Amino acid sequence: MDLSTVIGLIAGIGSLLAGYLLEGGSVGALGQFSAACIVFGGTAGAVITSFPLSSLKNLPNWLKVAFTSQSFGTAEAYETLVRFAEKARREGLLSLEQELESVTDRFTRQGMQLVIDGTDPEITKEILESNIAVLEKRHRVGINVFEAAGGFGPTLGIIGTVMGLVKVLGNLSDPNELSKSIAAAFIATLYGVASANLIYLPIASKLKMKDKIEVSAMEMILDGILSIQAGENPAILKEKLKTHIGTISENQEGSGAPSGSPAMERS
Amino acid sequence: MDLSTVIGLIAGIGSLLAGYLLEGGSVGALGQFSAACIVFGGTAGAVITSFPLSSLKNLPNWLKVAFTSQSFGTAEAYETLVRFAEKARREGLLSLEQELESVTDRFTRQGMQLVIDGTDPEITKEILESNIAVLEKRHRVGINVFEAAGGFGPTLGIIGTVMGLVKVLGNLSDPNELSKSIAAAFIATLYGVASANLIYLPIASKLKMKDKIEVSAMEMILDGILSIQAGENPAILKEKLKTHIGTISENQEGSGAPSGSPAMERS
Amino acid sequence: MDLSTVIGLIAGIGSLLAGYLLEGGSVGALGQFSAACIVFGGTAGAVITSFPLSSLKNLPNWLKVAFTSQSFGTAEAYETLVRFAEKARREGLLSLEQELESVTDRFTRQGMQLVIDGTDPEITKEILESNIAVLEKRHRVGINVFEAAGGFGPTLGIIGTVMGLVKVLGNLSDPNELSKSIAAAFIATLYGVASANLIYLPIASKLKMKDKIEVSAMEMILDGILSIQAGENPAILKEKLKTHIGTISENQEGSGAPSGSPAMERS
Amino acid sequence: MDLSTVIGLIAGIGSLLAGYLLEGGSVGALGQFSAACIVFGGTAGAVITSFPLSSLKNLPNWLKVAFTSQSFGTAEAYETLVRFAEKARREGLLSLEQELESVTDRFTRQGMQLVIDGTDPEITKEILESNIAVLEKRHRVGINVFEAAGGFGPTLGIIGTVMGLVKVLGNLSDPNELSKSIAAAFIATLYGVASANLIYLPIASKLKMKDKIEVSAMEMILDGILSIQAGENPAILKEKLKTHIGTISENQEGSGAPSGSPAMERS
Amino acid sequence: MDLSTVIGLIAGIGSLLAGYLLEGGSVGALGQFSAACIVFGGTAGAVITSFPLSSLKNLPNWLKVAFTSQSFGTAEAYETLVRFAEKARREGLLSLEQELESVTDRFTRQGMQLVIDGTDPEITKEILESNIAVLEKRHRVGINVFEAAGGFGPTLGIIGTVMGLVKVLGNLSDPNELSKSIAAAFIATLYGVASANLIYLPIASKLKMKDKIEVSAMEMILDGILSIQAGENPAILKEKLKTHIGTISENQEGSGAPSGSPAMERS
Repeated sequence: MDLSTVIGLIAGIGSLLAGYLLEGGSVGALGQFSAACIVFGGTAGAVITSFPLSSLKNLPNWLKVAFTSQSFGTAEAYETLVRFAEKARREGLLSLEQELESVTDRFTRQGMQLVIDGTDPEITKEILESNIAVLEKRHRVGINVFEAAGGFGPTLGIIGTVMGLVKVLGNLSDPNELSKSIAAAFIATLYGVASANLIYLPIASKLKMKDKIEVSAMEMILDGILSIQAGENPAILKEKLKTHIGTISENQEGSGAPSGSPAMERS
Repeated sequence: MDLSTVIGLIAGIGSLLAGYLLEGGSVGALGQFSAACIVFGGTAGAVITSFPLSSLKNLPNWLKVAFTSQSFGTAEAYETLVRFAEKARREGLLSLEQELESVTDRFTRQGMQLVIDGTDPEITKEILESNIAVLEKRHRVGINVFEAAGGFGPTLGIIGTVMGLVKVLGNLSDPNELSKSIAAAFIATLYGVASANLIYLPIASKLKMKDKIEVSAMEMILDGILSIQAGENPAILKEKLKTHIGTISENQEGSGAPSGSPAMERS
Repeated sequence: MDLSTVIGLIAGIGSLLAGYLLEGGSVGALGQFSAACIVFGGTAGAVITSFPLSSLKNLPNWLKVAFTSQSFGTAEAYETLVRFAEKARREGLLSLEQELESVTDRFTRQGMQLVIDGTDPEITKEILESNIAVLEKRHRVGINVFEAAGGFGPTLGIIGTVMGLVKVLGNLSDPNELSKSIAAAFIATLYGVASANLIYLPIASKLKMKDKIEVSAMEMILDGILSIQAGENPAILKEKLKTHIGTISENQEGSGAPSGSPAMERS
Repeated sequence: MDLSTVIGLIAGIGSLLAGYLLEGGSVGALGQFSAACIVFGGTAGAVITSFPLSSLKNLPNWLKVAFTSQSFGTAEAYETLVRFAEKARREGLLSLEQELESVTDRFTRQGMQLVIDGTDPEITKEILESNIAVLEKRHRVGINVFEAAGGFGPTLGIIGTVMGLVKVLGNLSDPNELSKSIAAAFIATLYGVASANLIYLPIASKLKMKDKIEVSAMEMILDGILSIQAGENPAILKEKLKTHIGTISENQEGSGAPSGSPAMERS
Repeated sequence: MDLSTVIGLIAGIGSLLAGYLLEGGSVGALGQFSAACIVFGGTAGAVITSFPLSSLKNLPNWLKVAFTSQSFGTAEAYETLVRFAEKARREGLLSLEQELESVTDRFTRQGMQLVIDGTDPEITKEILESNIAVLEKRHRVGINVFEAAGGFGPTLGIIGTVMGLVKVLGNLSDPNELSKSIAAAFIATLYGVASANLIYLPIASKLKMKDKIEVSAMEMILDGILSIQAGENPAILKEKLKTHIGTISENQEGSGAPSGSPAMERS
């Protein structure tokens, strides 16, 4: 479970309710089915029009990514690549064939297979980079969907409030009733602004952070594979990978970076 | 028919009406000819001033693109390119001449013709990339027009409301009439914000997504053609094209990608 | 005359007036000299502070560009370049000297002169590209001025309205008078938002579109000249120029593109 | 004196006052010490927190740049560079040593010294480009400070108005007094929006324009120096410099560009 | 202590309070626990959801950076690099080994170690640049967190005010009480806008400025190390480093740049 997503959502929504109750507001007044229908239905409509259905089908996956903790196995990948580099230097690239079975990460396995097959380094690089680019495009769609919802939400809140005011002003009678109706109209603004700023935009941001971590991990593996293919000294390979890990662990929750990662911050 | 465009529009506008009716508003009050005149007339005027007439003439085409489902035939193109690559390797580039008739896609045919004519690879690449660039510029104009409408809409809604308030405040009489007039003035804001957020901006986004898919399909074909011209191994060509298809099918509705497309998402 | 600029302005401003009259507003109430002074004087002041006087002196030129229809003679340039390429191939570059007199376009003439003088291709390219860059910078200033006016306009509208409210609230007497004064205060917002969204920003956009067309035309000519200098096959030159024309005619009003231009849109 | 800065500020602020007086407002009501304290003090605080003190110390310099007219001596630099190029071609680079004393521009002198010392062309270019980059970074800080003030100003205006309303609503008594207090609260919004849009943002824009002119002048000198070092034909050098001057004079007040500068605008 | 951060915060918040007291407001009315709960709790929730916990743990570090004055030892690094360059030229790169102990800066030591070990220049550059990139990514997260807080703050202020109004309007009784409740509701807007514009955004800006200074210092060291490795003339090295120092001292508080740094500003 991704702790910060869960804690953040609970803290955000909880603070709003706590502050409202402290002021002596009644929670019942915050529930407005018609406002919810306008704001959430309208936001959904705008998002559905904006993206192809095949993209939107991934919504459950994106939510899963935002709410669960992923391990990108960078520490493990580091060990594997260093071991491969040393073995390749001693016994040649072909000796890695039998090790390949044990690699669980598909990207590492695909890359090493290309190396063992003797693919031209330029083409190896191109194919692996294309795979990273595909992943990034896929992630980007998810980020875009949540950012779009974060943009449409508040405007639909305004629409809901304006519709409420139109209804109220169009038929005035009891002034006490009037103020209650105006209060109800504001609920739509509340729904729109709160859903965008406590849910949609923070989740878009969280997905963006996770995309960066995964892409960094794949770039580390790419660099390692190309270094092995070029027959570089394993010491150089270690130095390069450690720098990558420095970036990744910076952004990762429960990072599994090896202890020897560089710490360049000046004291 | 592009399902998500149609479903999204119906869901969005439907939610607004449903919420309004649930609150007990009368639909008649939402129809305001003068507000519509200011908001839609003004938005149209601003958009017409912003773009040349020759661009705006494409409005029906853009709407057609947004509302219908296009097939970019990537699966078919994949098959064709692989078949051509294998034939070219066995029997030479010239053997492809007779196959060319059967290719329905103009871009593939133009590219293969250049290859068969023995055009310099650099120039082949340049001409085909220019063709993609022309397509992108054409699409970009459509996206820009809808984004401009989405930007002008809400501000013209504000203009309409301000004009309504000016009229109301300039001649007060019956206070009950007053509140009805203020309600009417807000209708302009409603039109402006709703048209921008439920129609113009989502359609701009949909056009952008479809542009990306078509351009990706053309880039795949371009890559394939250059690979055939360079006489690369068909196995490499397959690997390259599959990566492209990974990107395309990600974004496409009812994708026809071959089953062997790469799935790099980590489990 | 640039039809879309004129039609757009008339349609936009006309729609506002029509909607207002339909509501039963009196046009006289829309004329407020003090509001006009604050909004238009203030916008002018902000724009004058923002740019050097020597730039602002071009205001009449920019308006002329926005309101008249320019011919960039791409069809004519295409014919000329193809004719030159064929003649150069048959009779050598020097044979073009006598033709040069008949070329009316300064950019084409300057470029061909450099070619005939035997200037190094790299330097020819550099000089011509610098000329295009100068033109773009010049155009950019005009676009920036209108975009700045479009940004300052609405904020000065708000300033005008706030000043009006300050005056009204500072000395209340007759409540009926009060509402009229508030209405008058709103006129400033109306002026600011309407001038920005119906005039300044659409004209900035139109100037941007025309800049793109002119630059594309010059890039076509540049490509043609370099192709002639390199002694490329006229058939290749034709193919290259046609692609450029595809882009240009896409954006141009009353395009004069030759009928053989490529049409890559998929059916 | 930079005429457009002074005229613009007077025109902008004057228009506001004129419009206000025409409406019959009393100027005294616009002076609100407490609002000024909140808005200008708050903006100053936000800007001071945002930037290091050593940067802010340059504030008087930036104001001097915005309010005075600078001569970048491009015409003079053009003459000097052409003269040097011709002399170097006739008598060799070393012959320029004695001329160097007479050059008043530090950048030209430093560059020519490097050339005469026989520094490697790559390193000469690198050092001079670094000097331009240093200048640009220095200018950028000034632009950023004024843009930050332009961003903070209106929000502090809102803060001031909200604080005023809080005070008013917290202790109601005489309703006539009430309206005066609300009017006073709006003065803060007026201060914030007007200072940002009439002063801070236009000055940021003016500084940006002047930065572009100075950098263009230095790039012209750099190009000239490298051309002299490469021993290029003075005719080519002239052609190159004239194009630069075309860009510079476009943006400069009281331009001193030689009459032979290119005018590529199509008729 | 970073003077400008402390002075700026005191000046900003002090100006607000001073202005409010001058108007005769009571400070007690500004303290609203429920509003603080909604605005600060909500902002915290949104930020926590947006970033991984491992990033947020660095909050104390970022605050320390913003509030204390750092020395990046550029003057010292300059001396060291020039001394090393001269020694390396006289006695060879290996002679630097014994000097390395005395270098306190980790980045300089790591770089010089790579040079002494005879690492390939390309790889040396790559490793050191990666280290700079890691530092920049780390800093960027801090900047992003404060910018996110600056974005969420005002919207949560609006949410708080809307919630307050909903509560008030939902149960009207004593009109005098009403106005006090509305005043209280506005406190939330005050908290949100003020915290964003006086604290979060200025601190984000300050962190950005400091990131630029530190990265510039590291780039200077990188350039120096590569110059030593390439065996360049110490005079050229000095010229290069001085230009870097010109940029750094421009942005630094209490700069320790050597007196010979270039001053290119034209008089």
